[in-house]
Parts: sequence; structure tokens; C-alpha cells
Amino acid sequence: MPRSLDIDALAAGVAQRAPRPLARAISLTESGHPDARAVLAALPAGREAHIVGLTGPPGVGKSTTTSALVTTLRAAGRTVAVLAVDPSSPFTGGALLGDRVRMGEHATDSGVFIRSMAARGHLGGLAAAVPQAVRLLEAAGFDLVLIETVGVGQSEVEIARRADTCVVLLAPGLGDGIQAAKAGILEIADIFGVNKADREGSEHTVSDLRTGIRLTARPTGAWRPTVISLSAQTGQGIAELLAAIEEHRAHAQRTGTWQRRRAERAAAEVEALVLAAITGKVHHQVAARLATGDGAASDPHTLAEQILTHW
Amino acid sequence: MPRSLDIDALAAGVAQRAPRPLARAISLTESGHPDARAVLAALPAGREAHIVGLTGPPGVGKSTTTSALVTTLRAAGRTVAVLAVDPSSPFTGGALLGDRVRMGEHATDSGVFIRSMAARGHLGGLAAAVPQAVRLLEAAGFDLVLIETVGVGQSEVEIARRADTCVVLLAPGLGDGIQAAKAGILEIADIFGVNKADREGSEHTVSDLRTGIRLTARPTGAWRPTVISLSAQTGQGIAELLAAIEEHRAHAQRTGTWQRRRAERAAAEVEALVLAAITGKVHHQVAARLATGDGAASDPHTLAEQILTHW
Repeated sequence: MPRSLDIDALAAGVAQRAPRPLARAISLTESGHPDARAVLAALPAGREAHIVGLTGPPGVGKSTTTSALVTTLRAAGRTVAVLAVDPSSPFTGGALLGDRVRMGEHATDSGVFIRSMAARGHLGGLAAAVPQAVRLLEAAGFDLVLIETVGVGQSEVEIARRADTCVVLLAPGLGDGIQAAKAGILEIADIFGVNKADREGSEHTVSDLRTGIRLTARPTGAWRPTVISLSAQTGQGIAELLAAIEEHRAHAQRTGTWQRRRAERAAAEVEALVLAAITGKVHHQVAARLATGDGAASDPHTLAEQILTHW
Repeated sequence: MPRSLDIDALAAGVAQRAPRPLARAISLTESGHPDARAVLAALPAGREAHIVGLTGPPGVGKSTTTSALVTTLRAAGRTVAVLAVDPSSPFTGGALLGDRVRMGEHATDSGVFIRSMAARGHLGGLAAAVPQAVRLLEAAGFDLVLIETVGVGQSEVEIARRADTCVVLLAPGLGDGIQAAKAGILEIADIFGVNKADREGSEHTVSDLRTGIRLTARPTGAWRPTVISLSAQTGQGIAELLAAIEEHRAHAQRTGTWQRRRAERAAAEVEALVLAAITGKVHHQVAARLATGDGAASDPHTLAEQILTHW
């Protein structure tokens, strides 16, 4: 990090959707740098993007689908930013670019911004950093921000479900382990994409999902999840997926779900910031207590209580 | 939950390795029930099991490998408990039994205890509940406690790496998405199991891992991860995997890693308990602040700061 940073210039660059300032500002939020806050405060207010979460188990074709969505959105003249949230990063210290490379075709298009984000190994890291990155991308004036996460793991699923519209991607024939992982993400979907439509079992997956949705009780007027069969490789169904995303947006804005989710997201961001600050303090307190004979002899609950009382 | 609970009887049942008291005590820790603490305090001290974490991406055959390990351990007269940590649960409200069914062959064996654990949707839930369940299983006198988690997602990976010995299971040919997920769990492995040894690409995966390990600098005397080729379906390589687990234990006990990891685990449990208590308070504080005009008008950092100052 540079020692001095021209906050206003950086914020202005973000507002003009300039890729380098954007990338730099996101790095600041990702690393929890103190200047991130000043940059966020200097952004123009009132710009709103449609935040779409895309999640699903490994191997269902999330990045291929993301790439197909970007192509279709661009063909329609819409700008799009992609945040690929990479859960592997607490241990590698940086996001893997891996399959991002596949999106190389969009590299020279100024209407597209693609970025991997990593959890820096501290609790609440992504929960605080992702909403900040989203605010940067909204201020940059993108029409749509796509957040891609792996649909396994508490924090990753949480990020996707906090979008304005949450798309869960599935594919037929991924084996038992993945079936189990799937079950956890069924309840957060506004839209299901069933990828690999040409594969055996695809129609079965679609009809299973539709039956499940039909059998779930919902309040009158509530959104009923849509199931879209698609093939990200060939592009089949991508237009329908985008239409469903658009339909969900209209429904959410009409019914107030839009405002409610945004309020929840704002609250979650504040909570993450508070917890991130507290976590560090708790870590040091616990270490200090355990270093004394007294602390080491206590059971975990007693020790936790002593620390909480002290607070 | 019953209104009154005979804590001592429950603790005594756990100490005798009786399945029903054990299951009930684990449910108490899982739900964060206040009686959990009293049960934990009433347990006999000084019993230690070998805690083995088993993790890997969905579809690599974790539960088949677990089952094979259990069979081999039982044949050698060793008792074993399995905790299957299920990340899907924040949304289903209970652990999926799904592939646990495969382990039915062990259902009538009193030397085996199998249990799925769920995160009850609250932050720090699993981080606090899993070490408590482990303490229950150690007090029950099991020789080995196997904690199985999906190796995707911050919290799930964290649980596996906090074991005495961490086994990362991989398999050849699982596609790009899974390759990426793999990268995040490479650094936490004490032992790699490469499952599906009969599949094409298996030898390649093994040699890639060995090269990676050879090229990684490590302090003199530090453990160098072992790579075991296996087939959980046929049982091939399972004895070698167990031998490697045993070898790692001996090394850890000889070098002090054993004590260090246990101390870290104890600290992590206290931290999780403190954070679980604080998280609820933060949630209410944020909601209260946002409900006022003042709070809603502030930016997230300012609001977070106000709440932190107030603390």
C-alpha cells in the first residue's frame, strides 16, 4: 500500500468506471485498509445496480454461466461487473484466477469488470469486504453486479443470498456428496438454473425442482422461484435466465422485497464491520487469559464468561 | 428440551459411551442449550482421543472413505466416533442424514458412534459446538474421533484443520471448479488421500502433490505431508492411510505439535463462545440503531464505530 493516497482521485476514478482505480479501491476494502472508508465516503450517492448472486456446488458450471450472462448482457448494451468470491483464499493469501481466464474474451471491454475476491483469513472478512466492493461497483455505474460464490459453506452461501436476486445453479448427475450440498442452497434461490441441459437426468432435475416449489407454501403475492433449463456452453437458455432475473427485479421492486433486502444487507455490513473489529480484540484477550495459569486451568465456558464480563 | 435434566446421569452415560446420552449431550451443545456447559463440566477429565479431520471437495468420496476407515479401525479393535459436519444445515434447520445411510453397517456396533452436526444458522455455531462435541467424545473414551467436513467454505475448512491430524481427500478428474476449491485446502493437509486410485489421472494427481510437497520449504524436523493413493470402494490403501495417520500422531507428540494444536483449539473454542455471545448483541444493536433516523442516515463505518464506542 502506498503511504499517501489521493482519496478523491481514486473515488473519482471509480465513479468514471476506470478499471485501475476500481481494482485498487476493491483491494483496499479486501485488505481492510483504513483508507477504504474514506474512498467509500467520497463516492457519488444514488447510483443503484441490480445485484445478482450466483451460487451452486463446485462443478456445475458457474463461471461458464457467468461468462455467458456477461456476453448476453453486453450484446444488449448493458454494463456488468463480476465479483468472483473465492473461498480457497484464506489459505493461499490471494484469490485464484484459475477459471477466470476463461473470461478473457471480455478483457478489453470497458463495459465489463471482472474481479476475484478473497477472504483474508479473518472472520467477517468477506462479509464486510463484499458489500463494500458492491458499493464501489454501484457507484461506478454498472447496470448489473454479479456475485459468484461456491454454494457450499456458511459464509459463501450467505453472501449470495444477500443479493437483490439470488440464482442457484445446479446440474444433473453430480453424485451424492453434491446432492447433499445442494439441499442447503435450495431455500435461498429466487431462480434455479439447471445447467448442462443436454445431460441425462436434466429434465428430471427440472421437474423435481418444480414439484418442490409447487409443494412449498408461500404467502399470497410472494415470489415463486423460477426454474430455467440452460446450457452455458452453447448459450441455450441464457436469455431466459436473464429474463427471469429481470422479472424477479420488477417483482421485488413492486412488492418492497427490494428495499427490505437492501436494508438487511446494510445491517449485515455494519454487523460484519463491528464483529471484525471485535474479533481481533477477542483473539488477544483469549490469548492473554490462557497465558496465565488461572486462564489455562478454567473450562472454556468460564473463560468465555470472564472475558464477556470484562467487556 | 426437557425442563429439568439430570446432568450427572447424562454425563455418566457419556462417560460409559452409551449412545443415547451421547447423542443427547451432543444435541445440547449443537443447539447452544445452557445445560451443555454443566454436562461438559461433569465429564471425567484426562481422556484423550486422536482427533482426525477429514476434508475435501464434494464428490471425492469422503463418506465412503470414512466408512472404510471405520471398518479397518474396528477390525483392529479400536473404537471410533464420526462427526459429520454438514454445511447445508443453516438453511434446512437440521443435519442431512443423506449419505450417512451408507454407514448403516456400523449401526449395531457399540464401538462406533456416528453423528451429523449442523450449524444452527448462527455465526460461530459450529466453531463452538464441534469442539464441545469432541470433548464429549473424548470423555466417552473413543480411541479416535473422525471429523468429516466439506473442504469448501471458510468455517468448514477451519474445523478440519484444527484436528490433531488433518487428512485432505482428493480425487482425479473432478473438473475445474473443484480444482480451484482444492487449492484452498492443500496447505492444511498433514496427509493427502487420493481416492479413486483406479481412475485415469490418479497417478498424475499423486505425483503432482508429491512434487508440490517437495518444492515447499519447511523448517528442519517439521512434518512433511504424506500422499496415499487409495480406493475407498475396494478398501485398497486404507491400511496405509491409517498407518500414515498413526505416524503423524507419533511425530506430533514427539515434536510438541500435538500440544500446540490442542492449545490453539482450546483458544479457538473460547473465542467462538465469546463471539457467539457478542454476535447476538451486535445484531440487536445494529437493528436498534438503524431503526432511528440518525442510524439509517449514517454510513456503515460510522455506524459500526458508534456501536463499538458504545461498547
